[in-house]
Amino acid sequence: MSVSRLKLRVRYAETDQMGVAHHASYFVWMEAARTELLREKGMPYRELERRGYLLPVREAHCRYRKSLQYDDVFIIESKLIEIRGASIKIDYAIYRESRADDIVADGYSLHAFVNGNGEVLKVPDFFKKLFS
Amino acid sequence: MSVSRLKLRVRYAETDQMGVAHHASYFVWMEAARTELLREKGMPYRELERRGYLLPVREAHCRYRKSLQYDDVFIIESKLIEIRGASIKIDYAIYRESRADDIVADGYSLHAFVNGNGEVLKVPDFFKKLFS
Amino acid sequence: MSVSRLKLRVRYAETDQMGVAHHASYFVWMEAARTELLREKGMPYRELERRGYLLPVREAHCRYRKSLQYDDVFIIESKLIEIRGASIKIDYAIYRESRADDIVADGYSLHAFVNGNGEVLKVPDFFKKLFS
Amino acid sequence: MSVSRLKLRVRYAETDQMGVAHHASYFVWMEAARTELLREKGMPYRELERRGYLLPVREAHCRYRKSLQYDDVFIIESKLIEIRGASIKIDYAIYRESRADDIVADGYSLHAFVNGNGEVLKVPDFFKKLFS
Repeated sequence: MSVSRLKLRVRYAETDQMGVAHHASYFVWMEAARTELLREKGMPYRELERRGYLLPVREAHCRYRKSLQYDDVFIIESKLIEIRGASIKIDYAIYRESRADDIVADGYSLHAFVNGNGEVLKVPDFFKKLFS
Repeated sequence: MSVSRLKLRVRYAETDQMGVAHHASYFVWMEAARTELLREKGMPYRELERRGYLLPVREAHCRYRKSLQYDDVFIIESKLIEIRGASIKIDYAIYRESRADDIVADGYSLHAFVNGNGEVLKVPDFFKKLFS
Repeated sequence: MSVSRLKLRVRYAETDQMGVAHHASYFVWMEAARTELLREKGMPYRELERRGYLLPVREAHCRYRKSLQYDDVFIIESKLIEIRGASIKIDYAIYRESRADDIVADGYSLHAFVNGNGEVLKVPDFFKKLFS
Repeated sequence: MSVSRLKLRVRYAETDQMGVAHHASYFVWMEAARTELLREKGMPYRELERRGYLLPVREAHCRYRKSLQYDDVFIIESKLIEIRGASIKIDYAIYRESRADDIVADGYSLHAFVNGNGEVLKVPDFFKKLFS
């Protein structure tokens, strides 16, 4: 199973008055991570949209174990762990650069394949091949 | 079990190029909803923080069934459904104003009780009483 | 000159580690305010987009005089102060509910009228009439 | 005058239904850019805050000339252009990687030096030296 790793830094705007990265930011980072996952597989999401496939989020989950602070550098690991008939599941793990075994947060997202009218589509073969 | 209802409107900034409200916005709305839930119970979150209790998110989950568009009015219903030793669980349902039976999204959040140093605290009695 | 007033509350997600509302949030609030301004004039922005007119921001400015904290209630006043050939200017003032003379922040935005292809359009007559 | 350059990519969450990066995102990027500017000067903002200096935004301005789309790579150039008694001014230019002469947006921010109580401080000498 191929894994993509994206390195980011906590932005000041992403902190809240608790002094840590706000929990909703993690979903934005996961999204950035799957953008890289698809690019590394040779199928940028932008290209998918051009081909008429949208991948709206059907479910999003995150478990927060540690916190991140402003300017902290971290890695988001993403991997596609399941392809169903018309949807895919992606798993994420977030950790500090030098501590891959010390998970800050983990989560997953489920995505449907739909066209521009929101109609559900089967996961296309060219997509399955990318991850086989 | 008491339920709090907050009415909001989708902001333009909350949309994305898919033409719908971005999935991370839902977590921001849930947070706004639990702010109202606590206020209605007589214990604004701001007051909780003043008393030295923080409620960081330990887990956040959302399932997206429909989409919302720019300027759509919607309701976020929140209710505290569980008080454990040192954490609470809140459930959410999002629907359009006139269609409470047509859920747009639902989800939950788990929160720890911690002090300013991040040390876990028991859920205080005054808090339990608010929801008993 | 007609003035629109929108009442909002600072969301937790809108704060940063300085303990106040993050400065970029003000631009999101201004946008929400002009949505109301247009609605009150009988021409919701959503309807404008349906007619083929987009109003991208060409310039945005904000001066921060005071700060706002989590859960603070505030008013954003907006008014259209200028209609040029192909653009409009909107002014904003933000203040606490009971203190209209104690400005927290003020600013403006300039908007072009363009079509879906990004081509500049003259401000249409029906729009001018709304504000005359 | 030293210039800092930060390379970023437009996130999906940063787009809006117009199909371009939302105008408020630019202020978040400018903030990320000045974080790098200070780091390159040997005085990370985090370190400044540790020394008791906060740099709240007093004024923010952006002019949008072109648009950026999802996944576009761009550069934000920042430079400190003025040190006054108790404030500084930073200028920004945003452009695509290979087209430094084709400005997408430019802007500036004014920052006060304050302490944790919000009291205005003179720009400290150690800070002036960094930029002299």
